[in-house]
Amino acid sequence: MTSAETESANEATFRRICDSETILKDVSSAGKVIPGMRRDTLVCAGPPMPPDELPGPTRGAAMGALIHEGIAESPGHASKLLAAGEVKFLHAHDHDSIAPMAGIISWSMPVFVVENSSYGHICYTNINEGVGKTKTLRFGAYSGEVLRRLDWMEETLAPALRDALRLSGGIQLGSIVAEALRRGDECHNRNKAATALFLTRVAPHLARSGCSGEGLAKILEFIGGNDHFFLNLSMASAKATMDAAHGIPHSTIVTAMSANGRDFGIRISGLGRATPPYRWFLAPAPRGRARYFEGYGDADACPLLGDSFITECIGAGAFAMVAAPAITEFVGGNMAWAKRAMERMYKITAGEHDKLLIPYLDYRGTPTGIDVRKVLATGTSPIINAGIAHRNPGIGQIGAGLFHAPLQCFREAAKALN
Amino acid sequence: MTSAETESANEATFRRICDSETILKDVSSAGKVIPGMRRDTLVCAGPPMPPDELPGPTRGAAMGALIHEGIAESPGHASKLLAAGEVKFLHAHDHDSIAPMAGIISWSMPVFVVENSSYGHICYTNINEGVGKTKTLRFGAYSGEVLRRLDWMEETLAPALRDALRLSGGIQLGSIVAEALRRGDECHNRNKAATALFLTRVAPHLARSGCSGEGLAKILEFIGGNDHFFLNLSMASAKATMDAAHGIPHSTIVTAMSANGRDFGIRISGLGRATPPYRWFLAPAPRGRARYFEGYGDADACPLLGDSFITECIGAGAFAMVAAPAITEFVGGNMAWAKRAMERMYKITAGEHDKLLIPYLDYRGTPTGIDVRKVLATGTSPIINAGIAHRNPGIGQIGAGLFHAPLQCFREAAKALN
Repeated sequence: MTSAETESANEATFRRICDSETILKDVSSAGKVIPGMRRDTLVCAGPPMPPDELPGPTRGAAMGALIHEGIAESPGHASKLLAAGEVKFLHAHDHDSIAPMAGIISWSMPVFVVENSSYGHICYTNINEGVGKTKTLRFGAYSGEVLRRLDWMEETLAPALRDALRLSGGIQLGSIVAEALRRGDECHNRNKAATALFLTRVAPHLARSGCSGEGLAKILEFIGGNDHFFLNLSMASAKATMDAAHGIPHSTIVTAMSANGRDFGIRISGLGRATPPYRWFLAPAPRGRARYFEGYGDADACPLLGDSFITECIGAGAFAMVAAPAITEFVGGNMAWAKRAMERMYKITAGEHDKLLIPYLDYRGTPTGIDVRKVLATGTSPIINAGIAHRNPGIGQIGAGLFHAPLQCFREAAKALN
Repeated sequence: MTSAETESANEATFRRICDSETILKDVSSAGKVIPGMRRDTLVCAGPPMPPDELPGPTRGAAMGALIHEGIAESPGHASKLLAAGEVKFLHAHDHDSIAPMAGIISWSMPVFVVENSSYGHICYTNINEGVGKTKTLRFGAYSGEVLRRLDWMEETLAPALRDALRLSGGIQLGSIVAEALRRGDECHNRNKAATALFLTRVAPHLARSGCSGEGLAKILEFIGGNDHFFLNLSMASAKATMDAAHGIPHSTIVTAMSANGRDFGIRISGLGRATPPYRWFLAPAPRGRARYFEGYGDADACPLLGDSFITECIGAGAFAMVAAPAITEFVGGNMAWAKRAMERMYKITAGEHDKLLIPYLDYRGTPTGIDVRKVLATGTSPIINAGIAHRNPGIGQIGAGLFHAPLQCFREAAKALN
């Protein structure tokens, strides 16, 4: 491989990222659409790992999903099924899927269908359950409240959203992400403006499709009251984009970052297969600059977990830190610090996004397309905003923080490039 | 008056501005609630002026309102009634009301009822018609499209919003303004995030109150598709706030800025009556640093018009310029320029708002409470973001720009203070 070949490949990769338009087309169910899905399989986050080593939050979420599916009768029963190896796990990235944190999606769960309308790639994601700190499946909780909400989402919310989306002709997601970056979101750890924009787009179609009265009111309150409702859509939009940027020979651009609570992994456009199963370059999952909820600390934390850092790969998330002062503040920084953090990201990326613009940098595009060569040449690690789950099953979210991708996996990738 | 008396009065005025909570309580109709309203009267913007000197946009809007009320049969007929002096005008500020640009509110028009829940002051405002450049009554247009929309707002939109608001128990406005300032709005010339937030709050109650199907869909699309829907609520919230800050003896704080297309006026907390009619200090309405829509220029522009600069008085609008990069860009500035502009406003205000915070200034409060003494001591004029109407009736908006309040009215006020 010559340097000119790589330059040209990286430019093509960068253009695919910027030129991808994404659209939310439909709601289906996991069992119908996710490749390889069976009644006894669960989708989970992260680069592949042995199922018996899955971390606490993923096991907790799996337990909740097994009860939700009627496969297990109780948490104890679910735990035994997992210990006996009777549940098969599909890693989301290899199955056209993505979901936050533990990333558990089971057979009957409704999934959004997101399409890269420029290049055709499809990504499925589940519906965000809400915040409520410790009370969500994705952070490993499986209480009655969590399970009842999953039932309501499946029986009531999903059919209404499906009817509305079909009437709407689809809702463009990329334009929501771009506008939300002008409204204080970075579309990874902050999705408030994006959620409000999504609600504005979908609400008329919910009404038009026949949903009404208290039922519609509850749906509108659920979406509008869940500051992270858009997160799953942001992630699916990013994955449908990055999958289109993957598989370009000689490209040294990172097309996914992901963690499973043990390993952190990166996928490189020009390395491994162009289609699943993908090749991952691994390093131990890092610990971050964390802010914990009251009563929790480092000892309680599961190492980095989830597929949501796909947002950083398209130039959102921590790569758009200046767009989201609230996140900057939460991770203990101020605006000058956020600008310096972004300046470092400009040094390790292929270019500046032509649609994701930062108003406070006088509409400069976000740093987009992490280049393995630049990461290693500068010794600068990509930054990531992420939530932190408790290390044990059944507890949930205990904080959030700023993480650095480990350089070791970039060194592994560089060896494969040479 | 001693300097200590003024300091203390200004501190009390500033505290009233910051401590005012405002709530949107109800929808009524102008004829029922606006003091002094009769079937043949129209509310209009600006400090009082002789009705036969009202500017083109105000006359255009009045013509539309007279047709809407069935008082005039045609624009020609309406024009004759105006020329004959058969229509009485009430200036909004003196009648517990406010509305953008020409500010025309007629008897049958629905009005929002906004209450300062901390101090009890009430302000009425009409419902924003939408943008569509030249096609709105408030900018002086009165085409069939404008009039049909007024009918729909009165017959369909207002009753639905009334039912929803009564069910909701009221929607807090101050918290929407504060959050919108974190989402790229300055809540005068940009109200996109505030509108999306308002829709998120009101939509469930619209559904719950029995509005459904295509009717509800159209209402949600009208609100969500009108980037300035929240403007009238932002103004009414600001007036209900500033009316509570008005009438404090010895206070040198500006409690309103307003223009009628001929004069620009300011109202001072410690001068004139504490209740309407208020005392105004006038100077000729200024021309601004304007950006015109294609095909229009300075020669077409009506001098500054409207009551919307009340938002600058509470520390929003141009006083929160850094919050809204899109507006900064529109008036031809960049972020460094916006910061310098705000720095100057900090020098002429009583303090920094404790709820209206600017993320990009590391959550510094906006400059709040324009002090006549500081304006004159520094020779620094308050800045205003405002829309520009065509000088003739029936045309509408032709641009927007950045204006400076004329120093002359501050000098007039200072004479009265001494």
